[in-house]
Amino acid sequence: MSKQVGIIMGSKSDLSIMSEAARALDELGVGYELTIVSAHRTPMKMIDYAENARKRGVKVIIAGAGGAAHLPGMVASLTSLPVIGVPIKSSNSIDGWDSILSILQMPGGIPVATVALNGAKNAGILAASMVGAFDARVAENMDKYKKDLRIKVEETAKEVELKGWKETLDD
Amino acid sequence: MSKQVGIIMGSKSDLSIMSEAARALDELGVGYELTIVSAHRTPMKMIDYAENARKRGVKVIIAGAGGAAHLPGMVASLTSLPVIGVPIKSSNSIDGWDSILSILQMPGGIPVATVALNGAKNAGILAASMVGAFDARVAENMDKYKKDLRIKVEETAKEVELKGWKETLDD
Amino acid sequence: MSKQVGIIMGSKSDLSIMSEAARALDELGVGYELTIVSAHRTPMKMIDYAENARKRGVKVIIAGAGGAAHLPGMVASLTSLPVIGVPIKSSNSIDGWDSILSILQMPGGIPVATVALNGAKNAGILAASMVGAFDARVAENMDKYKKDLRIKVEETAKEVELKGWKETLDD
Amino acid sequence: MSKQVGIIMGSKSDLSIMSEAARALDELGVGYELTIVSAHRTPMKMIDYAENARKRGVKVIIAGAGGAAHLPGMVASLTSLPVIGVPIKSSNSIDGWDSILSILQMPGGIPVATVALNGAKNAGILAASMVGAFDARVAENMDKYKKDLRIKVEETAKEVELKGWKETLDD
Amino acid sequence: MSKQVGIIMGSKSDLSIMSEAARALDELGVGYELTIVSAHRTPMKMIDYAENARKRGVKVIIAGAGGAAHLPGMVASLTSLPVIGVPIKSSNSIDGWDSILSILQMPGGIPVATVALNGAKNAGILAASMVGAFDARVAENMDKYKKDLRIKVEETAKEVELKGWKETLDD
Amino acid sequence: MSKQVGIIMGSKSDLSIMSEAARALDELGVGYELTIVSAHRTPMKMIDYAENARKRGVKVIIAGAGGAAHLPGMVASLTSLPVIGVPIKSSNSIDGWDSILSILQMPGGIPVATVALNGAKNAGILAASMVGAFDARVAENMDKYKKDLRIKVEETAKEVELKGWKETLDD
Amino acid sequence: MSKQVGIIMGSKSDLSIMSEAARALDELGVGYELTIVSAHRTPMKMIDYAENARKRGVKVIIAGAGGAAHLPGMVASLTSLPVIGVPIKSSNSIDGWDSILSILQMPGGIPVATVALNGAKNAGILAASMVGAFDARVAENMDKYKKDLRIKVEETAKEVELKGWKETLDD
Amino acid sequence: MSKQVGIIMGSKSDLSIMSEAARALDELGVGYELTIVSAHRTPMKMIDYAENARKRGVKVIIAGAGGAAHLPGMVASLTSLPVIGVPIKSSNSIDGWDSILSILQMPGGIPVATVALNGAKNAGILAASMVGAFDARVAENMDKYKKDLRIKVEETAKEVELKGWKETLDD
Repeated sequence: MSKQVGIIMGSKSDLSIMSEAARALDELGVGYELTIVSAHRTPMKMIDYAENARKRGVKVIIAGAGGAAHLPGMVASLTSLPVIGVPIKSSNSIDGWDSILSILQMPGGIPVATVALNGAKNAGILAASMVGAFDARVAENMDKYKKDLRIKVEETAKEVELKGWKETLDD
Repeated sequence: MSKQVGIIMGSKSDLSIMSEAARALDELGVGYELTIVSAHRTPMKMIDYAENARKRGVKVIIAGAGGAAHLPGMVASLTSLPVIGVPIKSSNSIDGWDSILSILQMPGGIPVATVALNGAKNAGILAASMVGAFDARVAENMDKYKKDLRIKVEETAKEVELKGWKETLDD
Repeated sequence: MSKQVGIIMGSKSDLSIMSEAARALDELGVGYELTIVSAHRTPMKMIDYAENARKRGVKVIIAGAGGAAHLPGMVASLTSLPVIGVPIKSSNSIDGWDSILSILQMPGGIPVATVALNGAKNAGILAASMVGAFDARVAENMDKYKKDLRIKVEETAKEVELKGWKETLDD
Repeated sequence: MSKQVGIIMGSKSDLSIMSEAARALDELGVGYELTIVSAHRTPMKMIDYAENARKRGVKVIIAGAGGAAHLPGMVASLTSLPVIGVPIKSSNSIDGWDSILSILQMPGGIPVATVALNGAKNAGILAASMVGAFDARVAENMDKYKKDLRIKVEETAKEVELKGWKETLDD
Repeated sequence: MSKQVGIIMGSKSDLSIMSEAARALDELGVGYELTIVSAHRTPMKMIDYAENARKRGVKVIIAGAGGAAHLPGMVASLTSLPVIGVPIKSSNSIDGWDSILSILQMPGGIPVATVALNGAKNAGILAASMVGAFDARVAENMDKYKKDLRIKVEETAKEVELKGWKETLDD
Repeated sequence: MSKQVGIIMGSKSDLSIMSEAARALDELGVGYELTIVSAHRTPMKMIDYAENARKRGVKVIIAGAGGAAHLPGMVASLTSLPVIGVPIKSSNSIDGWDSILSILQMPGGIPVATVALNGAKNAGILAASMVGAFDARVAENMDKYKKDLRIKVEETAKEVELKGWKETLDD
Repeated sequence: MSKQVGIIMGSKSDLSIMSEAARALDELGVGYELTIVSAHRTPMKMIDYAENARKRGVKVIIAGAGGAAHLPGMVASLTSLPVIGVPIKSSNSIDGWDSILSILQMPGGIPVATVALNGAKNAGILAASMVGAFDARVAENMDKYKKDLRIKVEETAKEVELKGWKETLDD
Repeated sequence: MSKQVGIIMGSKSDLSIMSEAARALDELGVGYELTIVSAHRTPMKMIDYAENARKRGVKVIIAGAGGAAHLPGMVASLTSLPVIGVPIKSSNSIDGWDSILSILQMPGGIPVATVALNGAKNAGILAASMVGAFDARVAENMDKYKKDLRIKVEETAKEVELKGWKETLDD
């Protein structure tokens, strides 16, 4: 399976969040690579990574970062591939607002596809949907994934209706 | 040219902002369709639109909305195509925070690729980059677009350096 | 007792909050139904629920959701019954601001009666007051409920005045 | 037509916003009364108003206020009728946040049905939906109102699709 | 010692915060009374309290409340005595912003002297300074209190300078 | 008439706001002095002002400032008189949040009585109420002022009720 | 005069703000260079600029940017010179919050000396103070500048005291 | 080693945060002094400290404070040395916003070089970079520090790539 998604993050401490993107891609049958690249500590590695991703067959890059999060935007400035940004509520973040705004509010010309705070799982699903737009097998996996979500909610609803809410809460 | 991007918005008043997405796609050589669909006023049309977009050949949907902006997220729940959300600072919005948060903060399973407030131009570029990941012609257009951005800044820099900042300001 | 209030929420994890609405309705003598409906995971069930509530005799719908909370607004777009929205500070919420704004800031034409963050108890009381406006028995229950609130505060006040604040704190 | 809705506001300067509630009620065929009552300047009149509204046949009270907006919450504490609060972005308000939070965040036991900032029109529609839950004629008006909203969006959509977005913008 | 300060709060749960005002007044030698009065649950008691405070010899009222905090502002509307408002970060508050804004942003004509979030101790000191402006004994206590604050900081500074910061941290 | 209130502000550009405090004191019959003192540009004058105010017979100090507003808090640290802080939404302020928070959130021991953003009029009224707590003449003026506020609202209410809201709006 | 300060900004549209830094340096007798460098549009030029500034004799870099402002932080990651960041409230900014947070909240190891929103003048003064710490001539200019600020405030104060506030306002 | 940096803070409770500045300076080979100075409790000591720092050979002052943080700005008003402000998220702070805004938003003429919330380590590094701009030995230490940061990230990246993310997470 070729590696169509590149997952990067600024620090090992982001891995517990960012690994959810990898898990989602595993579940949806999309290959990926994952490594650590820091906009501020390894700027040259970041440039190298962004400029060569397309050549390696990567179709989408997922970049996670916290605080004054520059990695997603800087990578987006260095590639014409779509870049998904994951704002991370790291310990040096003000309730996540800094991470969100420094990823979301990119200037005209250099977009970053921003997902929810700590939304690495959704970043993986979004990357898969981009691949799935051009790849029938992944599209089918996406459809099945959505159907499973629906069925799970319907089953829970039935459970609550049958048992009653008090009994469900007591479980 | 097939219509690979679907651009929708909740109201005609969003058109002056959302037309920037169409302009960007025109410039990058990506075909698109554009119409008005309201999550709250035409929910059935929204469902119909979202469920049939893929069949019409659409690869990405761009949805713009303001205030309690439900259109991008609801469309994302009804298709497995990638959905780009454009938060709009409409007259009924609180400095845009409501639009941003009700598009960005989607629950696990249903991502929306959010761009900056009023960032319809970037939504168009992002959609093109998704197409360009699988289409060499569009990728080339993207590269040329980025190069033009660079050259324009470099020329401005040279101008300011030569003329001096006072003279540039006086122009 | 007919079921005059419909309580819905997007996920079983919202039940510990939303059950307070049920408790308040029990206390005020208003019948209700309660189930799980997700705007994003079961959109068709949501439509079905909203369109048929009035026929089942429901007079008010209480809908709770967190993050980019679309359930209350989407249900409001699909029924002409009053809809009360409960913003929930779920784990994927930014201090609740996203939940509040994506429920409160509905566009012209589609109101949602929003209560405080995690205010499910107040949603129940508010629903009862709507029923009580047309139902003397429930109105009496409301009056008694308010009187009990008053008496309880007055008794506490007396206790603190008699015992002194230091002794009250020490208890 | 009996006056089923009471519309109050803290100051004459709120009238240009609050009159939208009256207009909506006119359109939906619901009778109303409208006056000025200030929580801070006429506290005794406020108490009198709130305590006697039910006796006059009022079923819902709509209260609008800006800044540290106490009118909706205080009225709610003095009646068992449902109270709809309209946060107003008055000149002494900080972008409306003060008005919203001092109306929305009511303590347990005393709910206020809060609508969007400056959302007086929606307050009128919400009040009508409460009446309509028990009054078939008003319910029919509500359904017609929603249908008209839908038709208008559909017509606009068709216009944009036929004319093209550039031509629509040029109009 | 006559009771020159009235301390009130909306609920017994506010007592652990509000008792700091009492402690400060004890330390500064100013007499006070303390009780529980709720704007929303005992509105009539609130009116009675506010209207009779001056007659009982009270010179300043300190009122603490959380969430949509109406007690300080409503009391201020009912008396011409100065009212100090203490915003409380109660469990139903959004990080305290609601409490702060609904106390601070009073309309023209009805001021509330607002102190920091949970700043009951400062409310006590502020009340004492108001009394001290007209009462030499209390003014002297105030001066001594400030001097003690200064001496304590100076002693700590000397300690850190002598021991070194590493040793101070290790203590 | 002795000067019982000292009004200070950081810059002449604050005068158009701060003069409202002077106007309120004129109306309520309380004498005052007014000058310009900057915490950052004239720190020594500030110290001199704060330390000598009591000796000159001043009972309350009103200090207005914008942005990182240090004047009210620094003056409060240098006197035991009560200090009222007026946050000003100056041109270098972020919607007033900086002014509010740097005045309101004083540390334990050094309170500032903060009023609403640009609330200089209320600062004047608050200062008068502090004087009025000990001065029967000023207290009477306060009572009359409040009564006038009430009568004005009642007259406006009557006008709107008689003329109807449409006619009032048309005026 | 050697160019000890480098002033850069992301776009010509920032020049009207950023030129205030140049003006302040002119006034304080510190030499500077000024050009346009964009983190997102000319990333390679940015690297080149940052890596060679020290060799050219630059002692401090002032970088201004708006929205998701990455220029100051990226330059700081590429040089060991001090970098002053100026958050700019550009048209694509959310009241400046995005600019502030994406400059201020840098991760451990890579500081940016952030000044107030649109605070380019203060950035110039701050840069001069850094030079002045090691250069007696510039230090003297700094002292004179501060003294002039003081004298100007004192003169204004005298004017207001003599003329009275009403007359000053009328001018 | 002469003491080129002065580190001050308002209270001993800030020491656990502010000591990180000292640690960074130790690591970068820059001498410093550290003590406690409170703007509000020891204003005269603060003036003395600020006015004499330059004479003692100090080149940069680092000042940390929480809540309505006046220390950095007041010190900056009293010296022409560069002042670095560290906003501290103390217990009396509203998520740190008050500390940030009351340090960052200084008026024209009196800059404070603000670092991230609790960013004392970065304050130390920034102070060292100011010294290093004029001192080759410190500049070399800075370069080595940055190189070490880079190498550490590169090593971690290699580790994650070799071990795989699952294994790294399991460690």
